[in-house]
Amino acid sequence: MKLEALVDKAIQFELITVAVAAAEDEDVLEAVAEAVKRKLSRFLLFGDREKMLNLINEKFPELTKNSDIQIIHAQTNQQAAEKAVKAVHLNEANVLMKGNVQTAVILKAILNKEYGLRTGNILSHVAVFEIPDFERLLFITDAAMNLYPDLQQKTQILQNAVRIATSVGLEMPLVAPIAAVEVVNPNMQATVDAAVLTQMNRRGQIPNCIVDGPLALDNAISTLAAEHKGIENEVAGQADILLVPTIEVGNALYKSLTYFAKAKVGGVIAGAKAPIVLTSRADSSESKLYSLALAICSTKH
Amino acid sequence: MKLEALVDKAIQFELITVAVAAAEDEDVLEAVAEAVKRKLSRFLLFGDREKMLNLINEKFPELTKNSDIQIIHAQTNQQAAEKAVKAVHLNEANVLMKGNVQTAVILKAILNKEYGLRTGNILSHVAVFEIPDFERLLFITDAAMNLYPDLQQKTQILQNAVRIATSVGLEMPLVAPIAAVEVVNPNMQATVDAAVLTQMNRRGQIPNCIVDGPLALDNAISTLAAEHKGIENEVAGQADILLVPTIEVGNALYKSLTYFAKAKVGGVIAGAKAPIVLTSRADSSESKLYSLALAICSTKH
Repeated sequence: MKLEALVDKAIQFELITVAVAAAEDEDVLEAVAEAVKRKLSRFLLFGDREKMLNLINEKFPELTKNSDIQIIHAQTNQQAAEKAVKAVHLNEANVLMKGNVQTAVILKAILNKEYGLRTGNILSHVAVFEIPDFERLLFITDAAMNLYPDLQQKTQILQNAVRIATSVGLEMPLVAPIAAVEVVNPNMQATVDAAVLTQMNRRGQIPNCIVDGPLALDNAISTLAAEHKGIENEVAGQADILLVPTIEVGNALYKSLTYFAKAKVGGVIAGAKAPIVLTSRADSSESKLYSLALAICSTKH
Repeated sequence: MKLEALVDKAIQFELITVAVAAAEDEDVLEAVAEAVKRKLSRFLLFGDREKMLNLINEKFPELTKNSDIQIIHAQTNQQAAEKAVKAVHLNEANVLMKGNVQTAVILKAILNKEYGLRTGNILSHVAVFEIPDFERLLFITDAAMNLYPDLQQKTQILQNAVRIATSVGLEMPLVAPIAAVEVVNPNMQATVDAAVLTQMNRRGQIPNCIVDGPLALDNAISTLAAEHKGIENEVAGQADILLVPTIEVGNALYKSLTYFAKAKVGGVIAGAKAPIVLTSRADSSESKLYSLALAICSTKH
């Protein structure tokens, strides 16, 4: 499956609205222009009106007088973040997108108790990869948000990812909590937590997916590697979602896939009232579009 | 640079001797046969003589009556491991290679205080990857042996890897202790240790290399990613050696490179009196040959 299929899927939805915090940035507006062109969503663009209009006139003239774009002035980045978050809080928008504003600033607005987007769930990052010569999309969580999640946090991170995966069409995602080995070693917390999560899943405490771990990365994604080790279960070799034990594992895996394996990626923050797109300057515009598509698909769940 | 260049380099050395513990295994003998064919080394094969001779007659007739092969009978795997280790201890062999024997059994012999191969240094695994479209060999340590090394252990792991990298021709290897971010975060031990290792290197406590961290994987291996983040130092984007913070990071990275990025790999255990080749059944015979070549190169340092 290709990430482009997520864009096609998102296009078929009723047009939804994305609130962008601090949109006065060429990279951000490039993603907006592409999304508008492909009828992916409407946009509320919060930020410095004059800078935005100048950028649009100069670089994206097709956005002037486009009815799918609305510009709302904000005097500071902080104000832009607050206004964008409030728009989602009030259901004027269905997705929040970070523009040219620091992550800490937008997170503060998201976590605000009055007008923020908290649900009681943990917020976590879900990335989805299209890897050359690998037949299915692979979800990895959490490579960006939670540092060293404990068991309780892992259950929520896992469920956030299951909801995202389900929203793009996986009916019963297969989840591998990964570790360095596929046997439980009391000295390796990742293996212990993985075993516990597996049994919680069997007891119905983690629904709508099949969990089996610990698995090493190779046993999780390659049926041949799993067979070689004599590992037989529904997840081994077939995992859709990899739950990583720490942010260092997630980050190294994420970068290894994008830099060395030439994978394409989209990502979203799940667990809030609405999906949040937190792309960074280093992301390609293609990657930003995939993230938007993933967010749009996940509004429907 | 290609891993095949390590084989060429190893071939140019004076013929050295490899002691194999429990060589009565088709995969192991295949690697032995290939190494003998290419004049990489001589072999002392410890194990069940009858099984070995049967296998050789049936599958590798070119090894019969080959003067580069010597078979020494051992009644059990444990005995084969002990005899092979003793041969290295007594300088009858320069490299130890694990055959069809459990890692725990051979490690026990290696760590034996009387005839073992300890030097006071920590033993650590050093892997070297040839990654498609990446111009240099990339060393990763420790992806297999030490679980959660502390600062002291990291300095030794790092120095073991520097010795191996130097032995294959890198004069002053560039070392990136990797983390999830490139700034020090007191809540992320990997970043703290990375900063300390960097300063220890500047003070001459970790010689023969240049260390700079913390770096995330992308900043370590891609000059473009490093520039994008405004990171300027000798290692950023140019790292030869990645020091990973935990075995989970190393394992995920190792598997991601070999499965998704289609990298070739060789590996060796460093820090003992002689290099140790601990290949597993899942390794290709090509990978076993690269590991042998790496071990042979590193006997010269």
